[in-house]
Amino acid sequence: MKTRRSERVVDMTEYLLAHPHALISLSFFASRYQSAKSSISEDLAIIKKTFKERDIGQLETIPGAAGGVRFIPQISFSEAKKIIISLCQRLSEQDRLLPGGYVYLSDLLGQPELLKQIGRIIASKYLGEKIDAVMTVATKGVPIAQSVSYYLNVPFVIVRRDSKITEGSTVSVNYVSGSSERVEKMELSKRSLKRGSRVLVVDDFMKGGGTVNGMKSLIEEFEAHLVGITVFAESTFSGKRVVDEYTSLLCVEEVDTHTKTIKVVPGNYFNEQFSGFE
Amino acid sequence: MKTRRSERVVDMTEYLLAHPHALISLSFFASRYQSAKSSISEDLAIIKKTFKERDIGQLETIPGAAGGVRFIPQISFSEAKKIIISLCQRLSEQDRLLPGGYVYLSDLLGQPELLKQIGRIIASKYLGEKIDAVMTVATKGVPIAQSVSYYLNVPFVIVRRDSKITEGSTVSVNYVSGSSERVEKMELSKRSLKRGSRVLVVDDFMKGGGTVNGMKSLIEEFEAHLVGITVFAESTFSGKRVVDEYTSLLCVEEVDTHTKTIKVVPGNYFNEQFSGFE
Repeated sequence: MKTRRSERVVDMTEYLLAHPHALISLSFFASRYQSAKSSISEDLAIIKKTFKERDIGQLETIPGAAGGVRFIPQISFSEAKKIIISLCQRLSEQDRLLPGGYVYLSDLLGQPELLKQIGRIIASKYLGEKIDAVMTVATKGVPIAQSVSYYLNVPFVIVRRDSKITEGSTVSVNYVSGSSERVEKMELSKRSLKRGSRVLVVDDFMKGGGTVNGMKSLIEEFEAHLVGITVFAESTFSGKRVVDEYTSLLCVEEVDTHTKTIKVVPGNYFNEQFSGFE
Repeated sequence: MKTRRSERVVDMTEYLLAHPHALISLSFFASRYQSAKSSISEDLAIIKKTFKERDIGQLETIPGAAGGVRFIPQISFSEAKKIIISLCQRLSEQDRLLPGGYVYLSDLLGQPELLKQIGRIIASKYLGEKIDAVMTVATKGVPIAQSVSYYLNVPFVIVRRDSKITEGSTVSVNYVSGSSERVEKMELSKRSLKRGSRVLVVDDFMKGGGTVNGMKSLIEEFEAHLVGITVFAESTFSGKRVVDEYTSLLCVEEVDTHTKTIKVVPGNYFNEQFSGFE
């Protein structure tokens, strides 16, 4: 049975959104709807225009027999900025201040809608890069890694600080925790990352950079390549950071436990030019 | 500027998919596209029909001034079964067998596409229930909780076995780990769950049920209500399970470390009748 245009574009929109970065041939859609490829091309033109106008992402068309169409999730500079500004306000809420000057984040990192936005923002930074896996460390980095990996359509791997029998053989490294200067251990299941993989590191929070630096060592142990590092929030750090190239969405600039104030500003994400923004 | 129907339905489809369970008024769409409500109603009828035919979910229409439309993600019995059967095969792969008879799952729980399917399947079971939060325990339960919480459009909370200064005040309980019979401790940040919340518990694996039972105690400590328990996989357990009402997607029926075979069958998810399936 042939389908009408409006029904086709509803289903195609859902299909494309559910398969980010996947190359889908015109024949696939043509046979799915028993429609001519010329009609499918027209459908895709409508979707492409709407995705662009509504800031949903790019629809890339690859011509030729091996070609097709590919949906690249993306966020505009202005929308990303709006989200980050509102996050700055939320992170500055007085009752987030914990003893020791830490900032409570767990509620935000448990909100699916917000995680999607964070994932889209981070993924948008790496559109021009080939990435095979997203890496993070348990526990709070996991929701961020999952969301980014969804938008990049690659798997994510979880580095652990504790040993678990359900991980099989692991590779471990020692690292110096920046804030406490203690030497700690982190490990990753051996089978979870292929040699030569191109890896994006994400985490929820960075102070001295020790944890992120540990992940860098692990990537070397796996003979893999580090593509980039993005953290949800960084905090100003008085010592010397062990990591210098990284991206942060937010920066906790000042925490005053006496006046109970937290000052949060946008991170260095917006200082850079990158392929995600037109 | 007025928009054409096909452009409207592309954007509406995206918007509805991105806001599961949210009630969206017709006026919202009417003003978004500067179109008459009657046109919007017709658009929604097309989307509703396509979502149903393509097994994407239900589009509920609520009449009246306070009404609107609501997208309820859903999966059909046959699609859920197909996914579970293919997971049975993947879990039975010989090289997943770890020393001690454990089954390696971490690679599967790091695949965003698969996590989405698992989330949709679990969420479909609880369509008729009011749920305020999804609860899981760190680390491997997190990706499942995040995916389910996305489809239910509620936050998720992470119970931890280790204490972290970034969680603020916590409530902790002791629980008996079913397999080792050791008494252990788990805790949840005090501010992460409101009193009276209706909670869905999810986890990656259940053997004796000790961990899940610990989460039940925590829910009681928070004066919250347990709505249900669903685990990705259960394994047959020779002792007495401390949890009797639960749902499993998969069941690891037999593990033979001598012949190196794992037998995995569909879990009790398919034994039950529930609102998700028509």
